[in-house]
Amino acid sequence: MVKAAIIGASGYTGAELVRLLSGHPNVTLTTLCADRKAGQSMGAVFPHLAWLKLPELITVEQVDWSQVEVAFCALPHGASQEVIAAIPEHVVVIDLSADFRLNDVGSYATWYGHAHRAPELQKQAVYALSELAREAIRNTRIIACPGCYPTSVLLPVLPLLQAGAIEVDRIIADSKSGTSGAGRGAKESSLFCEVNEGFAAYGIGGHRHVSELEQEVKKAGGESAALEFTPHLVPMNRGILSTIYVKPKAGQTASSLRQLLVKQYEGEAFVHVLDEGIAPSTHMVRGSNHAAINVFAGRTKGTAIIVSAIDNLLKGASGQAVQNFNIRFGFDEIAGLASPALFP
Amino acid sequence: MVKAAIIGASGYTGAELVRLLSGHPNVTLTTLCADRKAGQSMGAVFPHLAWLKLPELITVEQVDWSQVEVAFCALPHGASQEVIAAIPEHVVVIDLSADFRLNDVGSYATWYGHAHRAPELQKQAVYALSELAREAIRNTRIIACPGCYPTSVLLPVLPLLQAGAIEVDRIIADSKSGTSGAGRGAKESSLFCEVNEGFAAYGIGGHRHVSELEQEVKKAGGESAALEFTPHLVPMNRGILSTIYVKPKAGQTASSLRQLLVKQYEGEAFVHVLDEGIAPSTHMVRGSNHAAINVFAGRTKGTAIIVSAIDNLLKGASGQAVQNFNIRFGFDEIAGLASPALFP
Amino acid sequence: MVKAAIIGASGYTGAELVRLLSGHPNVTLTTLCADRKAGQSMGAVFPHLAWLKLPELITVEQVDWSQVEVAFCALPHGASQEVIAAIPEHVVVIDLSADFRLNDVGSYATWYGHAHRAPELQKQAVYALSELAREAIRNTRIIACPGCYPTSVLLPVLPLLQAGAIEVDRIIADSKSGTSGAGRGAKESSLFCEVNEGFAAYGIGGHRHVSELEQEVKKAGGESAALEFTPHLVPMNRGILSTIYVKPKAGQTASSLRQLLVKQYEGEAFVHVLDEGIAPSTHMVRGSNHAAINVFAGRTKGTAIIVSAIDNLLKGASGQAVQNFNIRFGFDEIAGLASPALFP
Amino acid sequence: MVKAAIIGASGYTGAELVRLLSGHPNVTLTTLCADRKAGQSMGAVFPHLAWLKLPELITVEQVDWSQVEVAFCALPHGASQEVIAAIPEHVVVIDLSADFRLNDVGSYATWYGHAHRAPELQKQAVYALSELAREAIRNTRIIACPGCYPTSVLLPVLPLLQAGAIEVDRIIADSKSGTSGAGRGAKESSLFCEVNEGFAAYGIGGHRHVSELEQEVKKAGGESAALEFTPHLVPMNRGILSTIYVKPKAGQTASSLRQLLVKQYEGEAFVHVLDEGIAPSTHMVRGSNHAAINVFAGRTKGTAIIVSAIDNLLKGASGQAVQNFNIRFGFDEIAGLASPALFP
Repeated sequence: MVKAAIIGASGYTGAELVRLLSGHPNVTLTTLCADRKAGQSMGAVFPHLAWLKLPELITVEQVDWSQVEVAFCALPHGASQEVIAAIPEHVVVIDLSADFRLNDVGSYATWYGHAHRAPELQKQAVYALSELAREAIRNTRIIACPGCYPTSVLLPVLPLLQAGAIEVDRIIADSKSGTSGAGRGAKESSLFCEVNEGFAAYGIGGHRHVSELEQEVKKAGGESAALEFTPHLVPMNRGILSTIYVKPKAGQTASSLRQLLVKQYEGEAFVHVLDEGIAPSTHMVRGSNHAAINVFAGRTKGTAIIVSAIDNLLKGASGQAVQNFNIRFGFDEIAGLASPALFP
Repeated sequence: MVKAAIIGASGYTGAELVRLLSGHPNVTLTTLCADRKAGQSMGAVFPHLAWLKLPELITVEQVDWSQVEVAFCALPHGASQEVIAAIPEHVVVIDLSADFRLNDVGSYATWYGHAHRAPELQKQAVYALSELAREAIRNTRIIACPGCYPTSVLLPVLPLLQAGAIEVDRIIADSKSGTSGAGRGAKESSLFCEVNEGFAAYGIGGHRHVSELEQEVKKAGGESAALEFTPHLVPMNRGILSTIYVKPKAGQTASSLRQLLVKQYEGEAFVHVLDEGIAPSTHMVRGSNHAAINVFAGRTKGTAIIVSAIDNLLKGASGQAVQNFNIRFGFDEIAGLASPALFP
Repeated sequence: MVKAAIIGASGYTGAELVRLLSGHPNVTLTTLCADRKAGQSMGAVFPHLAWLKLPELITVEQVDWSQVEVAFCALPHGASQEVIAAIPEHVVVIDLSADFRLNDVGSYATWYGHAHRAPELQKQAVYALSELAREAIRNTRIIACPGCYPTSVLLPVLPLLQAGAIEVDRIIADSKSGTSGAGRGAKESSLFCEVNEGFAAYGIGGHRHVSELEQEVKKAGGESAALEFTPHLVPMNRGILSTIYVKPKAGQTASSLRQLLVKQYEGEAFVHVLDEGIAPSTHMVRGSNHAAINVFAGRTKGTAIIVSAIDNLLKGASGQAVQNFNIRFGFDEIAGLASPALFP
Repeated sequence: MVKAAIIGASGYTGAELVRLLSGHPNVTLTTLCADRKAGQSMGAVFPHLAWLKLPELITVEQVDWSQVEVAFCALPHGASQEVIAAIPEHVVVIDLSADFRLNDVGSYATWYGHAHRAPELQKQAVYALSELAREAIRNTRIIACPGCYPTSVLLPVLPLLQAGAIEVDRIIADSKSGTSGAGRGAKESSLFCEVNEGFAAYGIGGHRHVSELEQEVKKAGGESAALEFTPHLVPMNRGILSTIYVKPKAGQTASSLRQLLVKQYEGEAFVHVLDEGIAPSTHMVRGSNHAAINVFAGRTKGTAIIVSAIDNLLKGASGQAVQNFNIRFGFDEIAGLASPALFP
C-alpha cells in the first residue's frame, strides 16, 4: 500500500481524488490538506464523501511527510509550485495544476503573469498525457498532468501529427466544457442562474490552455505547428467535448486518420475509437476515466472532423492523475478507475 | 461466483443493474434479456457501458436457465409477473417491478387494473426493504424490491410506527423525484423541454405507490394507519427527496424521533441519520446506495419534519436489489455497492 | 407618464423591474440606482437588457428626486428601510424587500436580527398581496410587496381562512423554488455545480418568510392560526410551486374549497383556478405574472391538497410590484404585464 | 388588423407564433390549425397559453380562408408544401419549414428524400433572412423563413462574402443548439435524461441545413464558396450559438471584418454587433428576436472567429417569421417583437 497525500482536497478535483483513491486497492490515504478548511472533516466540506473513513483536513504545514510516498497536488496554479518546492525529495509529486506543464519557464511567465517559483523542479517535470508518455512518467519525480481541454484535444491530434498525417497549421479545436471546470470558487459567472439555460464562448483566441496545446503540437508536428482553440461553457456539471477540424495531408482521408487512431489506441483501457459513424457524447464517459474519439469526413474537400469526449474531472484531471500514479508505481493501470460511466 | 441474469436490461434500472453487477466480486453476468433490443449489444443500447465485456442481449425465450442462479427482473409491472411465473424453481428471483409488492392480490387488481397472473408466487414474495426485512429476504425465493418513493418514505417512517412514537394517521409524505423515475419510454411528458426549467406535482391523492405505502404503514402501525403522499417531478436525472410531516405522540419530540432512528440504523452501511440540523440533499447520495435521513422540529406545535434522500435508481431500485441479493446469498452487504456518491 | 426610479437595479428583481417597466405604456424610467455598479450601463450589468434605451446606473445619493414620482426598491432587507426613510414625501414607494412587511417592528427585530430603522414609516405600510388588498394599496404611500413564497401560499390560503372553510391550525405548506430566489450574490451554495442535479430542503422549521406567513394567516384566521412551512431549492432558474395540505372544516370538501377559490378569483387577470383535476406547473407561469392554483382531494380522510404555481421573480416579486403600481396609480392592472408565459 | 392563421399550432414554433401574434398590435388570430389536436383548445395543448383568448384548434380542411389574409405554416418539411399548395391565392404564406428554402427542387429531392410537391410555387419563394432580403420579401407571396442554424451563421457570414472580405472556401461553422430545435415529437433521443448533463455533436458532415447554407454562401461568394457545418445539442431549452472560423482575405483583419458588420447592421433593431471583446451568449437573446454577433482575432495567423447567438425559436424561427410578416405588410418591423430577452 502506497501512502498518499492530497494537497488541495477542498476543490472539485481534490474531492474526485479522494473518491477515487479511497477505493484504490493499493493506496492508503494518510493525508488530506486544505488550508482554508483545516480542522474540518472531509464530510463537512463534501457531504457526499461523509461515509468514507478519512483523515481530517490539515494545513500543508501540518503534514508529516514520513507518512507520504506520493502527493497529489490539486491547488490553483501559482500556489502549486511553491508548495511542491517544499515537499521532501522522497515523495513523488503528481501535480494537477498548470505549474509544471510548460517546459519553458519564460512561456510560463508570459501566460501566467509571474516568474516561475521552482524553475529547477520544472526541468524534471514530465507532461504526462498517460497513453503517450508512459516511459517518461515511470522515470520522473514530478508528473505534470495535462489540462482538461488539452487532454481532449491532444489524445487524437498528437498521434496524427506524429504520423505526419495532417497539415500542422490547419488545426481548429472548438471545445465545450461542463461547469465544474471553473472550480468551486464563488464567482458571479459560475452561479446557477448565470450558467443554466445559456451557452457562450470565452477566452476566445487566448485561453491559457493554448500554451500547453501549442507546446505539445509543436513537439509532435514541428515549429510551424499551430492550433486555434476556442473554449465554451455548457450548462452541465461534467464533460468536455472537442470538435476538431483538421486537414488531412495528401493521400490521407478521414477514414485513414481514424484507422491511425484505431491502431494507436488498440488495447488501451481508457481511450476508445468508436465504430465508424458513431458520434462521441459526454454521456458515454461521465464519471469515468474513459475517452471516446471518432473521425468523420467533412462536407468540404480537405476537411476531417475529429470529435473527442472525456469527463473533465476524470480523464481531464483526477482520473488521469490516478492513471499516472498507477503507471509510475507499476500498478495495473485501471486500479481505482474501473467504474463505468454513470448514466443517466 | 453466482450466475446472474438481468431481465429487462434496456431500461434505466436494467442498465444500472448491469453497471453494478459487472463490478460485483461474486457475480458472473451470464444473461442479459431485452426482448425489443434482442440481438444488439448492450453498448449499442447504452453506450456508457460499451467498454464492459458483456453477453449480447437476447429474448427471455432464449435464456438457458441452467446458466442462471439468480434473475433480476427490471420489467414494467404486469409483464414482470408473467415472465417470473415461467422461471424455473432453482432460480432466485429479485423483482424490481410492482408485481410482487402487494400481499393482497385484490389490492393489486384495484391499483394496477388487471387480475394478478401469478397469485401463487405472490404468496412467497417478501417486501424487501433491505434493512428491515433481512431475515425474510434470506428465506424466500421471490424478493420484491420496494418502489423508489416508498423506500425513501418507509426507511424513516416504519421504525417510528413500530416504536409507537408517532400518530399513525397523521403522516404526510411530500416527495420529489428526478426524471429517470419515469423510465426510458418516449413520452411527450418526459421530453427535455417539457421537464427542464419546470416543476410540478402529479398523481395527487392517488399515485400507485400509495398502495404499497399503505400496506406497509398498516403492518407497522395497525389498520388505522394512513398516509398522504404527493409525488413531484424535479428537472434532474436522479434522486428522490421526501419531506415527511408527522405528529409525535405525547412524550415524543423531533429530537426523540431522531434518536430512535439513530439507534435503528446504527452500524448500517447505507442508511445514515445525519448530525442534528444537517439537511439531507440528493447530492449526498447520487450514484450511490446510501440514504440520508434527518428529523427536524416543526415551527408549529406537534409537528416533526423528516427529510430523507436517496438515489431513485440505486437505493430506490437497482442498488437495493443488489443489496437484497447480497443478503439472500450471504455476501458482504456492500459488495458491488461500495462506490461513494458522484458529485458534482 | 409616471416618472419611476428603480433602487437596486443590479439584482435579479431589479433587472426584472427594468424589463417590465421599460415596456409599460404609462411609465418613464428616469432613474436607475445600483450603488456598487454606479457609472456602468445597465447593459454592462445585464447584457440581455443592452438594447433598451435606459439611464445610466447611479448611486442613491445622486438621485434627482424631482424626477421621481414612484420608487421601486429592490434592495436587500435592512438596506431598504434606511434608503426609504430618506426618500422625499412626494414619492410613492413600492418596496420588494421584507422591511415593511411585518406590522410589528418587534417581530421584525426578532426575525431579522436588528431593530427596525424606520418604525414610523412601517405604520403606513400595506402588506400588498395585490388581489386581496386593492383598497389599502390605493390609499398608502408605502407598499410592501409580499415575499415570493408567501405569495404562492397566501393567494389560496387566505380566502379559505377568511371563509372559515379550513381548520386554522392544520396548514402545511411544502414549497419549492427555483434558484433565482437566492439572488445574484456570489455564494458557494448558489454555484451551478452545487445546485444542478440536486434537490434539498433548507431553513426547515424556521425560514424568515414564516414571519409574514404567520402574520397574514393570523389576520385571516385568528390568533390560533398557524402554519408549517418548508422551502426547497429546485435546479431551475424560475418558479415556485407550493403544495399545501389543509383540513377542510366539517361540511367542506376539496371540491367546495376549490369552488370558494373559483369565486374569489373570478374575473381576475392573473390568478387562475384551473379546471378540476389539472395540476399546476411552474411551466404555465414562467416569465409571466400569472398564478395557477388548484385543489385536490387527499387520499386520507380530512385532507385537501392545494397546489399553486407562480414565477418567483414576477408574481412573487417584480410583477406583483408593477401590478401594485398599476393599482396605486389607477392604471389598467395588466399594463406592462400582458406577456404570456415563455415556454419551453 | 390583418387576419392570420397558424397552420401547425401544436409544435414549439407554432406555440411561439401564437404567443407573439396574440400580442401583435396589427394582427387578429382568426385561425389555429393542428390536425392531430383538432377540437382541443390551445390551452389544453400548451397550458402556458391558457389565459389568452384564442380560437379552437381545427384541421386544415376546416379553415375558412375568407377569414385569412396571412398563413404562418409551422409544419414539418414535406407536409408544408402540400398544405401550402392548397392555400388560396389571396393568402400570403410565411413558411417556417424547409420546403421552400431551396431554389433548386432537385437539391430539395436530394436532401429531403422525395420530389418536391409544389415546384411551381417554389419559384415564387424568397429565402427570407429578414435584414438581407427586405425588398424581395415585400414583393412575394411565399416567404420561406431560413432555418435556425442557417440564420445564426448567415447573418454574419453573408455580408462578409458579399464584401469579398473572406476566403470563400475556408468557412467552418461549429454550431450549438438548445433542445427545442428537435421539436415536440416523442423520441427517445429527446428525453430529459438522454439530453440533460450531456453534450454531443450530430449530423456531422451532412446535416440538412447544409443545403440552404451552401445555397446562400454560393449566392454571396460564388460557386467555389463552401462551408463546413457541425451541429451540437446543448442541454438547455432555447438558444443557438455558432462559432465560425473564417480566413480574412489579404488586407482584412478580424477588426476590419467586425467593422464591416458594424456598418452592415447599423440601425437594425434586432442584429447587434457587440462592443469589441464582448463574447455573445445565448443568455443575451433568449425569448427575444435579437441576434448578438462579434468577431475576434484568432491565435493563429489568418484566422478570425465570429460568434453569433440567437434564440432558435425566435430569430431562428417564429420571431423572424413575424419580422418578415411586418416587412411584407408594411408594419413597424418590431411590432409584436418588442420584448427584451428573459433572464435568468
